[in-house]
Amino acid sequence: MGFSLGSVVVRLGLKSGTDATPVDSITLCVALLCACILIGHLLEKNRWMNESITALSIGLCTGLIILLTTEGKSSHLFLFNEQLFFIYVLPPIIFNAGFQVKKKQFFRNFMTIMLFGAVGTLISFIIISLGSVQLFNKLNIDFLDTMDYLALGAIFSATDSVCTLQVLNQEETPLLYSLVFGEGVVNDATSVVLLNAIQRFDLSHITSSIAMKLFGNFLYLFATSTLLGVAVGLVSAYIIKKLYFGRHSTDREVALMILMAYLSYIMSELFNLSAILTVFFCGIVMSHYTWHNVTESSRVTTKHAFATLSFIAEIFIFVYVGMDALDIEKWKFVSKSPCRSIGVSSILLGLVLVGRAASIFPLSFISNLTRKSQSDKIGLKQQVVIWWAGLMRGAVSVALAYNQFTNSGHTLLPGNAMMITSTISVVLFSTVVFGLVTKPLMRVLLPKTQSSNELSCELADSVDSKSLALPLLGNGKERESDADINIPLPTSKRMLPWDPTHTVHHYWRKFDDAFMRPVFGGRGFTQYVPASPTQWTLL
Amino acid sequence: MGFSLGSVVVRLGLKSGTDATPVDSITLCVALLCACILIGHLLEKNRWMNESITALSIGLCTGLIILLTTEGKSSHLFLFNEQLFFIYVLPPIIFNAGFQVKKKQFFRNFMTIMLFGAVGTLISFIIISLGSVQLFNKLNIDFLDTMDYLALGAIFSATDSVCTLQVLNQEETPLLYSLVFGEGVVNDATSVVLLNAIQRFDLSHITSSIAMKLFGNFLYLFATSTLLGVAVGLVSAYIIKKLYFGRHSTDREVALMILMAYLSYIMSELFNLSAILTVFFCGIVMSHYTWHNVTESSRVTTKHAFATLSFIAEIFIFVYVGMDALDIEKWKFVSKSPCRSIGVSSILLGLVLVGRAASIFPLSFISNLTRKSQSDKIGLKQQVVIWWAGLMRGAVSVALAYNQFTNSGHTLLPGNAMMITSTISVVLFSTVVFGLVTKPLMRVLLPKTQSSNELSCELADSVDSKSLALPLLGNGKERESDADINIPLPTSKRMLPWDPTHTVHHYWRKFDDAFMRPVFGGRGFTQYVPASPTQWTLL
Repeated sequence: MGFSLGSVVVRLGLKSGTDATPVDSITLCVALLCACILIGHLLEKNRWMNESITALSIGLCTGLIILLTTEGKSSHLFLFNEQLFFIYVLPPIIFNAGFQVKKKQFFRNFMTIMLFGAVGTLISFIIISLGSVQLFNKLNIDFLDTMDYLALGAIFSATDSVCTLQVLNQEETPLLYSLVFGEGVVNDATSVVLLNAIQRFDLSHITSSIAMKLFGNFLYLFATSTLLGVAVGLVSAYIIKKLYFGRHSTDREVALMILMAYLSYIMSELFNLSAILTVFFCGIVMSHYTWHNVTESSRVTTKHAFATLSFIAEIFIFVYVGMDALDIEKWKFVSKSPCRSIGVSSILLGLVLVGRAASIFPLSFISNLTRKSQSDKIGLKQQVVIWWAGLMRGAVSVALAYNQFTNSGHTLLPGNAMMITSTISVVLFSTVVFGLVTKPLMRVLLPKTQSSNELSCELADSVDSKSLALPLLGNGKERESDADINIPLPTSKRMLPWDPTHTVHHYWRKFDDAFMRPVFGGRGFTQYVPASPTQWTLL
Repeated sequence: MGFSLGSVVVRLGLKSGTDATPVDSITLCVALLCACILIGHLLEKNRWMNESITALSIGLCTGLIILLTTEGKSSHLFLFNEQLFFIYVLPPIIFNAGFQVKKKQFFRNFMTIMLFGAVGTLISFIIISLGSVQLFNKLNIDFLDTMDYLALGAIFSATDSVCTLQVLNQEETPLLYSLVFGEGVVNDATSVVLLNAIQRFDLSHITSSIAMKLFGNFLYLFATSTLLGVAVGLVSAYIIKKLYFGRHSTDREVALMILMAYLSYIMSELFNLSAILTVFFCGIVMSHYTWHNVTESSRVTTKHAFATLSFIAEIFIFVYVGMDALDIEKWKFVSKSPCRSIGVSSILLGLVLVGRAASIFPLSFISNLTRKSQSDKIGLKQQVVIWWAGLMRGAVSVALAYNQFTNSGHTLLPGNAMMITSTISVVLFSTVVFGLVTKPLMRVLLPKTQSSNELSCELADSVDSKSLALPLLGNGKERESDADINIPLPTSKRMLPWDPTHTVHHYWRKFDDAFMRPVFGGRGFTQYVPASPTQWTLL
């Protein structure tokens, strides 16, 4: 009786709404996220586990418990929702990635990243599509048409590097980190575009002109998406610099940064661009200009708030995928032909391994051809790390698979159910098994004593670093002092033009210092203003 | 053609989902929020405007433009969604309120706040219900039953103090701020519980035993909700103190605080308690214990991140209500009898004014009887301010009205449409017209030279302040230094026990220092640990 009169706000809400979100699901989900953070923290020192595997395991266990307690009725309680994923969960992750990336490394390796991310994904796509056509025939699978096979290629080309990035260290292996990381972003964008193209066009008769058109459109898409992100980032920098929000309110600055970042993503969606690319570049621009125009408190807040949101979103995805994996309805179909289902999953897993090898190793060779310095080349060990880092398949694959195989409600077709379960199997297997091996593998391939490659890379860094190209959100070693902010930077630098990429970088810095920073602010071009007096700081 | 191949992630999502959120609405909404922040900033020095009015006006203008461009077809684009409001938008506002409130003032005035918030709301409720029964009969309104009249009382008893709090200053008028603010929270909870009770019980024959039962249940609900919030807050403090997350990651600490705060809210919903009260007390406990157990970066981040989320949510509500106000469908019914509609709105507005006066002035008199010191009493000017501060009606009223009058889909009844439009009219009128007068009124009633009341209040503060009862999240004047954190506080204080409330406060501090802080941490009981070395700080 006591509870019955309670403030049943949500029950009130549920009464009138149709698309009601059950409160118990939300409660469970939030509680699980808390548990993941706690257990992930406790297991941090463990040499096998990482946060992704912890979250996935917790999700699986919970799904199992729900399934058992409800006797198989709850299959729809945690159905994967693509829209939730793409509109709310993915943006903070990608934006934070752009916001925290070490820009110098990223742009220095820009061509290699594009090579891996775009060309590599295409190679993977072709190999997985053709391979599945050939191998599925041997399993007497006849319910897939050409479009489905192409879609499989796109779905399984989308890597999930979250897991690896938790193991790779941006400080210790900057080159590898930027390659794996940058490739992951471009790769996601490429596979989403690919799947979309497949679903829109009649690709049963691919001619060279259609292929060229597709390629041209991809380039166009890439350029416009990037430009939109850069534009929104610059607008935010300009607004905050001109109006100087910090005079009044840290909260306003932070709110504006969050909202404009999200605006870039959602605008890109609206214009049918690649939102992932847009918000990524918006993050880069914001960290380069906007972040330097706000108050100290805003800097600390944005840095950690964005990272926290991204952190929560990542854990959420893994718990979600883990729980969704036990959707009983799909597995019912599979249980009729378990061998064939295992066969499909194994074939896809094998194709993923081969497809990635066929893209990374040849492309690394090509990339090495353009690198003059021997020490700058990507070594074999590094190539193996890059290959391995992209083997995990994650939430993007699941989202794309749901999109392709549950369209217009025909989930109940056995073929579609099998494709969904196979996707989930591949995701679970690659994340858990490959993920478990990752930490030890990294320790073997990348011993703590840095390889010559990275050392030389850091050496090159040190030439023009410290004042010119400090990573924006650096580490403890490179603490930014107030004095540092005050001093306008010299516009010309001693520079060793031993590499064309570095020369391009050099001219960009000149241009940046001469034209961009005076307008949009940035390190050294914003007057130092302490936190406003009505605000509380720890100092 | 260029755009057509784009990464139509959301379009993909929309294809398979049923409860699709249109990307264009989200884009528009985010863009409007940005515009509100900008325009609100530019208009800050204006003597009439405040952020609520700006957001409401922008929402109205946008609604108008949409209405004109779509020629009246878009009425359902921005329909008010109760669930969105109660599950996602309200929690950050209330939590932040608890997190940032000056706890000493709040607890010192606890009884008065409860008197205003609970008893005052009941008085308002009775006056508005009875008054509307009497006055609506004169307008020949016959489509409302007893339950509807009682619901009207509950709906229009829910004040919206956001607007006033933007004008009142916590530093300048601490007593008034804590009264208005605390009353607002209790008041929201009371009206939600009231409406729920009305909808559940057959209240056509109210006997004294039913009334007593309702009252007992209200007390029970209040106690359990508070306890749940306190419990979750203490658990978060204990976990973070024991595991010491900061050693590893600021992001984890911040994520855990956010998640556990939300967990308290959603658990309270699950148990049918008053989630508003729960999350409010969770915020208080978190600011008292948990916040002292985390790293410096986490403190800055949580303080500003919570404030920012609350800020965005507040603006969102006003934009949303503004846009929803122009839902053409409802107004079509009203246009048939404009005079009657205006009559209804005017009557309700009048009853709101009278109802609040009938609760605040007598209750202030009662409250003053318990205050021995002449200088501690609530003066007439203060009473007028408190009265005025609670006249605005806001999003809670709109949400409750939608709940009562659009249940089970019978929105199309003329009577229900009229009640909804009247609610919106009262909300718009009170927010805009009363809101516009607020700033000048405050300036007249509360001149910059502080009234004797507040001076005495500050005087009383200064006796045991500085070390004992510094407001947690203080102002610039009371900057917290690292040294301050290091020094364990003396457990006994020179105390002037001239007031029973202060004595209770005194014993609480003793208990807190002796038992609570050693377990749950808090100021002076957590060892000082700087930001972890891998983290970057501004210092």
